[in-house]
Amino acid sequence: MDRRAFVGLTLVLGGCAMTATGQGQPPHSLPAEDVEAINAVIAAYERTWNASDLTGMGALYTPDIHWVNVKGMHWRGFDEVDRAHRVFFDLMFKGVPCTLEGVDSLTAIAPGVAAAVVVWRMGAFRTPDGHLAPAARNRMTLIFAKTANGWKIAHGHNIEIDEQAAPNDPIRGKRTQSS
Amino acid sequence: MDRRAFVGLTLVLGGCAMTATGQGQPPHSLPAEDVEAINAVIAAYERTWNASDLTGMGALYTPDIHWVNVKGMHWRGFDEVDRAHRVFFDLMFKGVPCTLEGVDSLTAIAPGVAAAVVVWRMGAFRTPDGHLAPAARNRMTLIFAKTANGWKIAHGHNIEIDEQAAPNDPIRGKRTQSS
Repeated sequence: MDRRAFVGLTLVLGGCAMTATGQGQPPHSLPAEDVEAINAVIAAYERTWNASDLTGMGALYTPDIHWVNVKGMHWRGFDEVDRAHRVFFDLMFKGVPCTLEGVDSLTAIAPGVAAAVVVWRMGAFRTPDGHLAPAARNRMTLIFAKTANGWKIAHGHNIEIDEQAAPNDPIRGKRTQSS
Repeated sequence: MDRRAFVGLTLVLGGCAMTATGQGQPPHSLPAEDVEAINAVIAAYERTWNASDLTGMGALYTPDIHWVNVKGMHWRGFDEVDRAHRVFFDLMFKGVPCTLEGVDSLTAIAPGVAAAVVVWRMGAFRTPDGHLAPAARNRMTLIFAKTANGWKIAHGHNIEIDEQAAPNDPIRGKRTQSS
């Protein structure tokens, strides 16, 4: 993502985050500076992934981060999340490109907590058992917490998008009226 | 899950939530009454699923809930999440059992916000295109926010656990020393 696109996205998301979304109590708003700071963490995640910089990636986590990966594995706390990623980079992810396709949404959950949903384009890679995993798009939930050291990732959950199933999405699928 | 197991889990999780997890600033604690209230929402989710009670399920959501389902579809806000679930219950989920296997973790993200990771056993079902999806285990992240109406689900992200990949989990896999 180039800088202009990134700044544009920041402004658009800043606008969305200010918009009321419906019934009940109004949603918490997310100040533009927080939107910018969170987008910077997402950009840092992309940069550290593509540099295989696991120390830099770990600097984006809270101490008690939890992570659910694309296979449904669940890692608990900084040490596990950091170690698991290092093992998988050594085994298969080093040099595999991961490119930010876009930030679907950035929603304030409460003061100092926000949920981002982001889509990544992952390059093909070979699994430890020799199987070739083709290029795919992943959709990732990132829960951000504002700490004394800035916005950090407190929770991640990642899934490979099933492109075959996507047309059956009742909200955005090609087979529905409303998209 | 019977009542005794549920109460036991509540106490265990209450204890865990009080435990410090490491470096940097101490994690936020989650009072026992909040742990109990969140477990009650998880139990209500199970109950409403199995009764195909979509109105009851919707009462567990915040107005600005986001949901990423097991196929990587992303629904934004109450209306989309509610409508998509109603469509899928009509098409395929009505009568398909969903049983809570356990709450992996319950972590305070900030005051009034908590992340639960839960595992469900889903029964087999037939997809709209006639394909039989076998019984499977799903791992779900649920982000809870404390609102004027109690703890509600602000974000959900669900994935089918890849049981073939599980032995390769660097942290809990059967092929690692540490499990």
